[in-house]
Amino acid sequence: MADTYTQLVNSGLGRNLAKKLNLPQPAVLRRYKPGQPLVIGPVVVLGDTPGADKLAAELLSWDLDVRRHAVPAEKLGAIILVLDGLQHPSDLEKPVLAAAGSLRDLRSGGRIITLSHPSAEASSPETAAARQGVDGFLRSLAKELRSGATGNGVLLADGTTTTSPSALGAVRFLLSGRSAFVDGQFLTVSTEDGALPAEPERPLAGKVAVVTGAARGIGAQIARTLHRDGATLILVDIPAAGDQLATVANEVRGTALQLDITGADAGQRIIDHAAQRHGRLDIVVHNAGITRDKLLANMDHTRWNAVININIAAQLRINEALLASEHFRTSPRIVSVASTSGIAGNRGQTNYAASKGGVMGMVRATAPLLASRGGTINAVAPGFIETEMTARIPFAVREVARRLNSLQQGGRPSDVAETIAFLASDAAGGINGEVLRVCGQNLVGA
Amino acid sequence: MADTYTQLVNSGLGRNLAKKLNLPQPAVLRRYKPGQPLVIGPVVVLGDTPGADKLAAELLSWDLDVRRHAVPAEKLGAIILVLDGLQHPSDLEKPVLAAAGSLRDLRSGGRIITLSHPSAEASSPETAAARQGVDGFLRSLAKELRSGATGNGVLLADGTTTTSPSALGAVRFLLSGRSAFVDGQFLTVSTEDGALPAEPERPLAGKVAVVTGAARGIGAQIARTLHRDGATLILVDIPAAGDQLATVANEVRGTALQLDITGADAGQRIIDHAAQRHGRLDIVVHNAGITRDKLLANMDHTRWNAVININIAAQLRINEALLASEHFRTSPRIVSVASTSGIAGNRGQTNYAASKGGVMGMVRATAPLLASRGGTINAVAPGFIETEMTARIPFAVREVARRLNSLQQGGRPSDVAETIAFLASDAAGGINGEVLRVCGQNLVGA
Repeated sequence: MADTYTQLVNSGLGRNLAKKLNLPQPAVLRRYKPGQPLVIGPVVVLGDTPGADKLAAELLSWDLDVRRHAVPAEKLGAIILVLDGLQHPSDLEKPVLAAAGSLRDLRSGGRIITLSHPSAEASSPETAAARQGVDGFLRSLAKELRSGATGNGVLLADGTTTTSPSALGAVRFLLSGRSAFVDGQFLTVSTEDGALPAEPERPLAGKVAVVTGAARGIGAQIARTLHRDGATLILVDIPAAGDQLATVANEVRGTALQLDITGADAGQRIIDHAAQRHGRLDIVVHNAGITRDKLLANMDHTRWNAVININIAAQLRINEALLASEHFRTSPRIVSVASTSGIAGNRGQTNYAASKGGVMGMVRATAPLLASRGGTINAVAPGFIETEMTARIPFAVREVARRLNSLQQGGRPSDVAETIAFLASDAAGGINGEVLRVCGQNLVGA
Repeated sequence: MADTYTQLVNSGLGRNLAKKLNLPQPAVLRRYKPGQPLVIGPVVVLGDTPGADKLAAELLSWDLDVRRHAVPAEKLGAIILVLDGLQHPSDLEKPVLAAAGSLRDLRSGGRIITLSHPSAEASSPETAAARQGVDGFLRSLAKELRSGATGNGVLLADGTTTTSPSALGAVRFLLSGRSAFVDGQFLTVSTEDGALPAEPERPLAGKVAVVTGAARGIGAQIARTLHRDGATLILVDIPAAGDQLATVANEVRGTALQLDITGADAGQRIIDHAAQRHGRLDIVVHNAGITRDKLLANMDHTRWNAVININIAAQLRINEALLASEHFRTSPRIVSVASTSGIAGNRGQTNYAASKGGVMGMVRATAPLLASRGGTINAVAPGFIETEMTARIPFAVREVARRLNSLQQGGRPSDVAETIAFLASDAAGGINGEVLRVCGQNLVGA
């Protein structure tokens, strides 16, 4: 799983060599470890709206070192641009150029975060243009950052503000090492729901969580991360992976549930297992998925159907059972694993991209059903992640694929897991029906 | 402007060499010329819904060679998948595998077109999943096509059908050589407005059109294409480009109007010019735009403001004048030029991407204002287009940039112009507030 090249260019000799040869120089990313500070160095909050004042005050209460104006030559942990008062594209100039002046002072692993309103909610052309301008601006800036720094945006939908619980939750996630591989993305906060955790290091304390496809790879890592964050786990995988599943279950002190998620009774069996052991079910992570790549010209119905059945039809059927259950009623959370292939399409993956596109459509349409019981459903869309599966890709193809993003490296299963843990937490209670890419700002898109 | 590499690999010797070295093999695209057939070879319409039957009947009335099932080994001009009855992801299997069986028979420059409904309009998770699955499927398939064949989709919003005027208009555009560089894209038809042209070779006959930035490059080509399609032209550019502007105006038998579009009275001067010469104004193409690239860390307010003022603020101001004018009231059309940089962001282009993002936000928010007077506003987002501007990019960077799309080549100014001409035509009257990429399915995206 180690990316040998990234290790090499971060050694003294390797760094000089890479510079001379003009090779990619992926940085070692700042990743979350319990006990570490949220962000390293002062946080500058730019913008002259009441929303900027309130956010700065809130960040101060987190014991961060907050500045309302940059101090020349002081190294910074993060630059936050509060752009919640934009009415015309010309309003961008002042905050953008203030940020420009501080960019060179941003530390390795630093963060740029914008807070603005969704363009689609503006009825005035001027305001809509200004808001959509933030999108083009931020995505460009994220491509200019180096040394593991990232740029992301929070979109505040009608009725929410910079200090809405999930706006603060999103800012916290984006500042932290949990979001190391999330780059060039926007996350919409749509309601005032949600709350910052009582125990910041155990945000899932007291929650019962199911993870499908948990025997290995990204699924096993999701289980480890949710366990670290305090959740009680039920791990699901097919009977053929029973031994591996038991090992992971043992590691995270959870229970193993062997079942085929495509079975008609899969949802009911998951609910029954949770109800019997724990009397409740709070979080379901739909991670299980397969690939059966073929060019469409060579596609057969076995390959097509296997991917559609496991990757999307099973999730639809399980969700139906969950939504009908009395045990999944208290702020329930569903997080599905989509893919950048489902957004951009991918050669040889018509079936996989259809299924992962399907996951995204399902998430959007299921969101109102969850909202009506105080819950949420969201998806993560991983880009190139270093797993046993991607380790089997031929060397040259893998080398190109893992560099085709702004961070010039593949992500780790833990990066996907951290994002899922955030979306499953109370801090994300106002985020619903969203797809968040975990892709290092992969070039590909629609 | 010639792409030497594309010429080389389409020579006998070059083709063999490129194959042996596994180099990109861009095809010579099938581009529109007046008098040529709409599509070369039979068109197979797959799908067993009433919408498929009706579309097939309509295509028959265009004198196309229509099949409802593929004939083995018969070379095809296009495969149309009518997917307007999807209710569950499992419904995709049958039409998708039928298309798979015919893919090898698709001719060079062939077309795949899907017709389906927007996922966002589905309230059932199953239906939303199926519809969004079409997106992942089509974008993947477009990446598998070779020899200049393209794949695109038409999305039929609530209240529209496969035979709505603009659905037919979109199918016609996508089948034709006019859409040569449009690939992997979806176009939404939102109303029953629009009509196929009485004279298919002169769809803009009788229309008065303004093109800004018309003295050279893409703007001059837009003028030529609109003229070819029958429009009467008013060409706008800055006084410093007066000589070039006069040359183009002469070529297209239009009038030249020298003005700075950032002037407070620019909109009124355009309207006055059109009213005095022609008594009306039907089409405005906002093409004028500039780049002033710098990393944000080196950005100054002159560069930032020049780009914002010319690329988006001027359009907002001119639109305001247009919408207030009594001369711009009969099915008025506005088409703006955005950019894939405004969608994906681009290193060194925070200002340009903010302005082009702004154009897209403006288009969406202005659409209802145009709709209320029977008009439309849309944008095209060009990818890598071979122009004098891109010819100045260093060779190696240019070579990579122009291959990073499914057609493995840069587009031509005429490709952008053809799409604008389509969006300005009566056939696109039901398409409003959309952004259509003209990028050969460029890899980059959000």
